[in-house]
Amino acid sequence: MPLTSRLFSVLDKLSAPTTVSAHCDLPCGVYDPAQARIEAESVKACMEKFNASDDPVFKERAVAIKEERAELVKHHLWVLWTDYFKPEHVERFPELHQLFWKTTKAAGEAKKTNDVAVASGLLDGIAEIDRVFWETKKG
Amino acid sequence: MPLTSRLFSVLDKLSAPTTVSAHCDLPCGVYDPAQARIEAESVKACMEKFNASDDPVFKERAVAIKEERAELVKHHLWVLWTDYFKPEHVERFPELHQLFWKTTKAAGEAKKTNDVAVASGLLDGIAEIDRVFWETKKG
Amino acid sequence: MPLTSRLFSVLDKLSAPTTVSAHCDLPCGVYDPAQARIEAESVKACMEKFNASDDPVFKERAVAIKEERAELVKHHLWVLWTDYFKPEHVERFPELHQLFWKTTKAAGEAKKTNDVAVASGLLDGIAEIDRVFWETKKG
Amino acid sequence: MPLTSRLFSVLDKLSAPTTVSAHCDLPCGVYDPAQARIEAESVKACMEKFNASDDPVFKERAVAIKEERAELVKHHLWVLWTDYFKPEHVERFPELHQLFWKTTKAAGEAKKTNDVAVASGLLDGIAEIDRVFWETKKG
Amino acid sequence: MPLTSRLFSVLDKLSAPTTVSAHCDLPCGVYDPAQARIEAESVKACMEKFNASDDPVFKERAVAIKEERAELVKHHLWVLWTDYFKPEHVERFPELHQLFWKTTKAAGEAKKTNDVAVASGLLDGIAEIDRVFWETKKG
Amino acid sequence: MPLTSRLFSVLDKLSAPTTVSAHCDLPCGVYDPAQARIEAESVKACMEKFNASDDPVFKERAVAIKEERAELVKHHLWVLWTDYFKPEHVERFPELHQLFWKTTKAAGEAKKTNDVAVASGLLDGIAEIDRVFWETKKG
Repeated sequence: MPLTSRLFSVLDKLSAPTTVSAHCDLPCGVYDPAQARIEAESVKACMEKFNASDDPVFKERAVAIKEERAELVKHHLWVLWTDYFKPEHVERFPELHQLFWKTTKAAGEAKKTNDVAVASGLLDGIAEIDRVFWETKKG
Repeated sequence: MPLTSRLFSVLDKLSAPTTVSAHCDLPCGVYDPAQARIEAESVKACMEKFNASDDPVFKERAVAIKEERAELVKHHLWVLWTDYFKPEHVERFPELHQLFWKTTKAAGEAKKTNDVAVASGLLDGIAEIDRVFWETKKG
Repeated sequence: MPLTSRLFSVLDKLSAPTTVSAHCDLPCGVYDPAQARIEAESVKACMEKFNASDDPVFKERAVAIKEERAELVKHHLWVLWTDYFKPEHVERFPELHQLFWKTTKAAGEAKKTNDVAVASGLLDGIAEIDRVFWETKKG
Repeated sequence: MPLTSRLFSVLDKLSAPTTVSAHCDLPCGVYDPAQARIEAESVKACMEKFNASDDPVFKERAVAIKEERAELVKHHLWVLWTDYFKPEHVERFPELHQLFWKTTKAAGEAKKTNDVAVASGLLDGIAEIDRVFWETKKG
Repeated sequence: MPLTSRLFSVLDKLSAPTTVSAHCDLPCGVYDPAQARIEAESVKACMEKFNASDDPVFKERAVAIKEERAELVKHHLWVLWTDYFKPEHVERFPELHQLFWKTTKAAGEAKKTNDVAVASGLLDGIAEIDRVFWETKKG
Repeated sequence: MPLTSRLFSVLDKLSAPTTVSAHCDLPCGVYDPAQARIEAESVKACMEKFNASDDPVFKERAVAIKEERAELVKHHLWVLWTDYFKPEHVERFPELHQLFWKTTKAAGEAKKTNDVAVASGLLDGIAEIDRVFWETKKG
């Protein structure tokens, strides 16, 4: 796609230098997939408690709170994807975009179901992201 | 990467069916890249007004408000990427992930500078996303 | 009401000049009733999906998400009303305040019911606001 | 405007019954202009502290925090306008819409300046709203 | 605990001077327990309406909205506790921390139940905080 | 204070049973002081970058972003204090309230200064909270 290639090279000239510095919108260079993991553990616990309860008000609150935590999972993952990872990381881990795409989709799926396997799959995706993240930190 | 392939196939089994329905976390199937575009127009206007002003309080407010609008651009784009697009779209537009990655990075860049070319580059990225989006709507 | 008249003239002296510039709290002069319309389309779709479903968890999520989108409709409309419209517009369209009042009330009503007619009425109100908005843009 | 009249009567049929109950989107019927007033007092104090300081970082924070509090003033006022007041109140206080419009505009103005007179004008507008509110509570 | 004592004296040297000024993160020195009280009145009203209704969608919305208002109660109380109260207040009112701890816990409890006694207990805690607050204002 | 004692015993009867379960507003029983720590590391990095820069727009953004991250530190700490800790923990660690009070105050202080010692003191307070937290997890 020549148009897309031209667009990409415009966007390339505009973006940050291709150093490996842990660099962000500002703030601080501090990222940690633990932020996404902790919220995903909440999502899983909400499902477990939903399944163990027969109180309709409690179950309603479990669904609503799970919705919020899953949204936070998506947010933390999106920020890692856009703000932390650099072109040299994508060269090294060509599956990176697809991994983030599928894991954020899993967080959305976790809002819609109380099947704990979906939350476990989400945690697996985050664990893989965490592995890749720490690989890039080693340099 | 065999581990990643196994992870992807676990995530695949957990995710939504591969129909082309405009389908989301719930809510409603209503998406429109106009949401991102309108906020990006704000970002550009904040830069223009910053550059035209010599009042330090006004300039400070322009920077702060631009930060918020640019964050909204990122959010609307991320939601489109994760919630609207489906595997069949990625097959048809293999540059999709890279396009979203670079465009959300451009939104982050726009927070850090008052160079209007960066905002224009962001709007170009959104225009390309909009083009692809409407292509998928045609089927 | 002499007190109110005196209050209005104090408030008048304090507010922005009566030029027709698309002028805002800063930021950028960028407004578009499309922001309210898109969220109202979501509200309508949430009602439709609620009515079509017999899954109590899905229906609960539809209600909760509709609540958030309807709140966003109200916010976008309120911002247009306060930040975009000027005294000369109210002189030209004397029903303006009443139109915004009834349409924001309709957004609140849409939270409480799954009667699609209420969402359609809300979209009608927004369409009228959009018509008036573009009239003022012509000058 | 026949179109607007027809629109209004559609919106009228859709809205809540015209009883005087302190009635809202749900929740609870609890409103108090004190919420807007307290945040407006903050806005005024931020201006005073800005004017008394010569530390540029402190002054920057005063402007940023004032921006947030002024936005909260607008929100509390908009909610009162749309959610609390009823058609019978507007008949009794025909200046109601204009009063809310000018007072929310004053809150926006207070973001842009450190002229304490603007904050005082905002507090005057809220005081008038408070007076009208308590009149309606008496019946 | 010698470690804790050393930590406290480090934290002491870093914190604001021990004057009695109504002093905050900036902004403005404006605090009022009314902010927490108003939201707690909402929480109580949500419970009352929940109990009076037999419409499952209405009841669901009452629970969700109560969740939000109770969270706002917690936030307003936490801000008062950390930002307003000073060491000399704690010396004068040694039960202060415990009072805030139990009252914020009561706000959390109010999310989980529709027993109006819990909301009344929350309002009692806020009334006591309000009493102590105004005592400190007298000097 | 007999009134306070009576109030406390009312609040006691209303609150959760005194088991040691990691129990919350719902959601899920998942808490981790790492959430507060990660944001506090951001706060420290923002200060370091502010001090290393001579670009006034960058420095302004560093202050604004630090404000947000410090507010998140406060929020995560407050939630731990109110939602996680139980009366039996306070009996075991009688300095608990004071530790949370001083550490949340340190987060507020970190908004107002770019003295890295304040951020380090905040991180020390969080480290102590983390120590106590894991002690309670052992039982």
